[in-house]
Amino acid sequence: MGVTVAIDCMGGDHGPAVTVPAARAFLRNHPEARIILVGRQDALEQAIGAIGNGFGERLSLRAASEVVAMDDPPAIAMRTKKDSSMRVAIDLVKCGEAQAAVSAGNTGALMAISRFVLKTLPGIDRPAIATILPTRKGQTYVLDLGANVDCLPEHLLQFGIMGAMLVSAVEHLDRPTVGLLNIGEEAIKGNEVVKRAGELLKTSGLNFYGNVEGDDIYKGTTDVVVCDGFVGNVALKTSEGLAQMLATFLREEFSRNLLSKAMALIAMPALKRFKHRVDHRRYNGAALLGLRGVVVKSHGSADAFAFEQAIHRAAEAASNRLIERITERMTAMGVAA
Amino acid sequence: MGVTVAIDCMGGDHGPAVTVPAARAFLRNHPEARIILVGRQDALEQAIGAIGNGFGERLSLRAASEVVAMDDPPAIAMRTKKDSSMRVAIDLVKCGEAQAAVSAGNTGALMAISRFVLKTLPGIDRPAIATILPTRKGQTYVLDLGANVDCLPEHLLQFGIMGAMLVSAVEHLDRPTVGLLNIGEEAIKGNEVVKRAGELLKTSGLNFYGNVEGDDIYKGTTDVVVCDGFVGNVALKTSEGLAQMLATFLREEFSRNLLSKAMALIAMPALKRFKHRVDHRRYNGAALLGLRGVVVKSHGSADAFAFEQAIHRAAEAASNRLIERITERMTAMGVAA
Repeated sequence: MGVTVAIDCMGGDHGPAVTVPAARAFLRNHPEARIILVGRQDALEQAIGAIGNGFGERLSLRAASEVVAMDDPPAIAMRTKKDSSMRVAIDLVKCGEAQAAVSAGNTGALMAISRFVLKTLPGIDRPAIATILPTRKGQTYVLDLGANVDCLPEHLLQFGIMGAMLVSAVEHLDRPTVGLLNIGEEAIKGNEVVKRAGELLKTSGLNFYGNVEGDDIYKGTTDVVVCDGFVGNVALKTSEGLAQMLATFLREEFSRNLLSKAMALIAMPALKRFKHRVDHRRYNGAALLGLRGVVVKSHGSADAFAFEQAIHRAAEAASNRLIERITERMTAMGVAA
Repeated sequence: MGVTVAIDCMGGDHGPAVTVPAARAFLRNHPEARIILVGRQDALEQAIGAIGNGFGERLSLRAASEVVAMDDPPAIAMRTKKDSSMRVAIDLVKCGEAQAAVSAGNTGALMAISRFVLKTLPGIDRPAIATILPTRKGQTYVLDLGANVDCLPEHLLQFGIMGAMLVSAVEHLDRPTVGLLNIGEEAIKGNEVVKRAGELLKTSGLNFYGNVEGDDIYKGTTDVVVCDGFVGNVALKTSEGLAQMLATFLREEFSRNLLSKAMALIAMPALKRFKHRVDHRRYNGAALLGLRGVVVKSHGSADAFAFEQAIHRAAEAASNRLIERITERMTAMGVAA
């Protein structure tokens, strides 16, 4: 893939200490890809110095004097920090020097700046955030995850289109299945917005499965699950809370006394394989969809392995023409200009 | 507790085979309580015959010739099955022979019949369903769980009042904390309904904590979590799906080969203690709130142990004056007639 990815190296909890090694690992695993590291000159030079630069012109630096803080209000980050690493990385996508941008920084600021710089695609009212969750069968893409709290049926339809195109680009599925998150399988269930969205999705030409329920997310019933940002955020955060509680309980029971600790030691290989299967780092990289450019958000706490997954997803989306796919589908439906 | 509980013995996946032994266990553990078993004469006599009856007049039978099926539409169950075990159990609460009813049957029918027979309390627009979830600290009560999909702020306020009174009655907490499920802690977050509900809860006289997020449910941040029925249903079903997936993965990793099976055997005591801590049977018994009588819904798949927990919760709610507590609070707020 001859794609160029711009990386906001200053974002996230760890900054260049994570983003630079992740970029190096990505370049090693993708011999045709290029990366532009964006950040404070001194910080980048130091990080590059520590890991060496053996990639020639495949790896370049772009200085940016400012950094968007995790608690910067989006509007402030957008208006006052015009030379932030986040903004410069997205500017590189806008001007065509890069085909995708990745950041582990402030989500609200990333969405606001991306929307301001790149603009939305024809026919898309609101960008959405699509995250990946592990399932019994593999993985599923859920959107929206918090960007849009009061949705119209048309927005949910647009989320369905964008999610399906993302999965077709990144997972190479021809006609991914799309489910509408609801409180029952029957079409008459749910609130008025969801009922109407179901009708729109049914006639959309997408591979629409119908309603799915909360447990279908982890059953992997469909490749894409569509919901408004309020419901999606609650589903995601509730999952995080439950997973953390279960992990805590499991750890406590295996460290209760010397005997349990011995049990844990013996059971370690099985426990490790279990941990690997649900390792959230493998699912890192939420796409900001509906923009005229590929932008991927990494978890703020990502380590180098997790951040590399986010870069990989951004590169896949860009080299498999995600933006064009969404535009084509919107045009085919007659909803785009 | 000198309370009488009417039990719909025919409801649930197992009918009298589960409900009758659960009733016996409950009577053994609560020497002052009474139970009226409601169901088909032959089925009840057979079940009683199998377990014996050593409780004298503390255990009585009430014949009901019909059974509400799991797939009966609520309106049909209500209008055409006037001698169903579910209906007769609720009639017993209405006429004062029992102070609470418990059923593992069709949720929609149970809500429709309860509402029709018992009516709602003054000031309560819509009954709600409150379920119990395990948390790191103990447990939390979440409502609504699916009865109300399009809520006004006033409904969420009423849920908060009913949930707090339920916890004070059943868990003997003086001023339980109430959280409003939202997508951020700040009061400005969320959709318009939730923002306004936050304002109402703040001035309600309840011990209002403020906004909570999905992960706060399992952190046990508050004793009560309030949300509309759509969001509550998605949060609950998503949790069920995730828990099932994790249990499947854990089982698979511990049964992958002979070595893993040996590991599982050795680790069994710790795994068992873990399983006990998250055993959903302990949290069985969702309250139908806002009615002029105590009605508790058991999971359809409950076993005798789980069903006994539901009976216990119903008895606690009735003997600790749940209905009066809700009425008093509504009156104090000036919202009741």
